[in-house]
Amino acid sequence: MQVEVIVKLKNGVLDPQGKAICHALHSLGHKNIEEVSVGKRILLEVKGQDKEAIKKEVEQMCQTLLANVVIEDYEVKL
Amino acid sequence: MQVEVIVKLKNGVLDPQGKAICHALHSLGHKNIEEVSVGKRILLEVKGQDKEAIKKEVEQMCQTLLANVVIEDYEVKL
Repeated sequence: MQVEVIVKLKNGVLDPQGKAICHALHSLGHKNIEEVSVGKRILLEVKGQDKEAIKKEVEQMCQTLLANVVIEDYEVKL
Repeated sequence: MQVEVIVKLKNGVLDPQGKAICHALHSLGHKNIEEVSVGKRILLEVKGQDKEAIKKEVEQMCQTLLANVVIEDYEVKL
């Protein structure tokens, strides 16, 4: 089963990467860009079919490894 | 308007980051993980309402800055 995890910075946490991309896009002439935020998209191929159990396990993986829960939020999509 | 861009490695391109995460998850006891692939998820806040024009412009941004089109594919979602 394929599981998608989206990891993004929490609101209010500074996003230097997003700011840098925004400035670069402006310098390339894309003046209508108001804000850019950058996150991670992680695809997991997981053995098994029990959606509930897999979702719970992937959330535990997010807590321990995939996301820095102090500054990041995560979303698990099956 | 908010536009989501997903940038991921092309099939066949080595994903050392994904491999490292996979090994780490296995060492944490998550043996049912078969494969991990890591990509970027970029959210753009764009002025304007013309979906077609915005999609075309964001695809051009992907070509020039947001993705390394030699080794990465991208997907634009409005």
